[in-house]
Amino acid sequence: MEKFEINILGCGAALPTPRRLSSSQVVNIREKLFMLDCAEGTQMALRRSRLSFSHLQAIFLTHLHGDHVFGLIGMLSTFGLLGRIQDLHIYGPLDLQRIFQPQIDYFCADSPYQIILHEIDTRIPQVLYEDRSVIVSTLPLAHRIPCCGYLFREKPTPRHIRRDMIDFYHIPVSQINNIKAGMDWTTSEGDIIPNDRLTTPPDPVCSYAYCTDTIPRPQLAELIHGVTCLYHEATFAQEHALLAKKTFHSTATQAGQIARDAQVGRLILGHFSSRYSSEDILLQEAQQIFPNTILAEDGMKIDLSSPSEPRIL
Amino acid sequence: MEKFEINILGCGAALPTPRRLSSSQVVNIREKLFMLDCAEGTQMALRRSRLSFSHLQAIFLTHLHGDHVFGLIGMLSTFGLLGRIQDLHIYGPLDLQRIFQPQIDYFCADSPYQIILHEIDTRIPQVLYEDRSVIVSTLPLAHRIPCCGYLFREKPTPRHIRRDMIDFYHIPVSQINNIKAGMDWTTSEGDIIPNDRLTTPPDPVCSYAYCTDTIPRPQLAELIHGVTCLYHEATFAQEHALLAKKTFHSTATQAGQIARDAQVGRLILGHFSSRYSSEDILLQEAQQIFPNTILAEDGMKIDLSSPSEPRIL
Repeated sequence: MEKFEINILGCGAALPTPRRLSSSQVVNIREKLFMLDCAEGTQMALRRSRLSFSHLQAIFLTHLHGDHVFGLIGMLSTFGLLGRIQDLHIYGPLDLQRIFQPQIDYFCADSPYQIILHEIDTRIPQVLYEDRSVIVSTLPLAHRIPCCGYLFREKPTPRHIRRDMIDFYHIPVSQINNIKAGMDWTTSEGDIIPNDRLTTPPDPVCSYAYCTDTIPRPQLAELIHGVTCLYHEATFAQEHALLAKKTFHSTATQAGQIARDAQVGRLILGHFSSRYSSEDILLQEAQQIFPNTILAEDGMKIDLSSPSEPRIL
Repeated sequence: MEKFEINILGCGAALPTPRRLSSSQVVNIREKLFMLDCAEGTQMALRRSRLSFSHLQAIFLTHLHGDHVFGLIGMLSTFGLLGRIQDLHIYGPLDLQRIFQPQIDYFCADSPYQIILHEIDTRIPQVLYEDRSVIVSTLPLAHRIPCCGYLFREKPTPRHIRRDMIDFYHIPVSQINNIKAGMDWTTSEGDIIPNDRLTTPPDPVCSYAYCTDTIPRPQLAELIHGVTCLYHEATFAQEHALLAKKTFHSTATQAGQIARDAQVGRLILGHFSSRYSSEDILLQEAQQIFPNTILAEDGMKIDLSSPSEPRIL
């Protein structure tokens, strides 16, 4: 299977601590990199991760709170100093241009590449990016300011040809793509050979939903149904449910409920309030509802294309 | 002697590396803190340094290149989240307000403290801050954009009273401050007792000059003559002197010449280009001209009030 890897650069909430940065991740799909949020310190974490700066295709910002965007201008400036020439597309809610265009104009005036800002309506799900292998779309969330999550879905890949059967039935090369796409084969004698004798199933596809910051939204379960992996904010423990509601955040219990209702493969908790000396309380809460839950950690790599355990850099 | 300590949070040039942040320092004078520049990651480095956020009096920015200011908005936002209520004054060149006021208005709208931006004319030396113990003034520098360094000078302290002599001559309490200020004493018999029999010398005062980014400016030597310690940028080695000139930076040799001409106590080199795998070449160059030179290092504390060696956190 092809690479589909989540790199967690930072998973803390508003206050960066010596233990963790605020929100930032890189999704690596077949060495194309997509960044999710960009907290202060992201460029240093990106360097430590040894991901290639130049493979970054696009940046998706959930919302314009500082702990999700304060690393943006520094990283964009560094890309310019390092000689990036490919365009870089940045997606984010309303105000993206008003806030960041003046900074880009001032601090990246000499950069040899174009930065294109795209303001999106966070209230409706929409496709933002598509290439041969992946589709990226938005997931409406509910926070204190306009906010959306992002959904990465690999496109289905063709079935695998069984070379021996192709040879046996003398199927011409011109028909291979049709066979891969699922067509049966009719021999010159009129016999129909069903496709599943000619092919083996395609690789399973991976999908990833990144949902932060938000109150729990039951509607979300439908949009992310069955994803391979869900990252959901769990800023608070259930004992702080009122505070979570007031600040438009989720508890770990609520994150577990969304994961269960959406029947996802795995849940990653993140966006931890710095008030907890250990996040084990959050893990235990979510696991009571959705057992296949892990805690995010700065430097963690999670390979969605294999059942291997997450690695920490 | 009272505390006068330089805390180097970051001493790299434009590109932050895993080894070091870009420019940022804190001068700790008797537990009043003054920040010099504020590169991305400064708030995390400040936390690691264990300096008290709330003791920060003012921030002085040399110029508005990103590697000197990209940590500002994140740190200001964090101060708000931590409940700072004292006003914070920020000094910097022209454009400070145009670039940072919109960010402050947007990201620190709920902060419980006032941020006051002061745009300064970097072309003339002027006093920006003064309290009982210290005066902070600007040092005109020459870079690609308006830029100034900063000079911290402790005010002279009074001479120390010799209690035994005060008693011996029955000098009344009302005269103590005059004696401390240097006055002689005339006894009732008309004998004049010279002040240096009644007092011992005051503590020596410390002074610190922070000079980055700039081409070497011979005029600087006069303004900073005899300072206890000079931090001078040494972005390049002499082999890159042409590149230094072109980019309005200094070589280590040039920094050594300024230190020698200004007869400073100690020279700290900083703002190192990331091209050098070791900065020893810079140290050797400067030491050939000015032996009492050291290399800055992230996390370094230098106590100017004692001859002790710098400590690394």
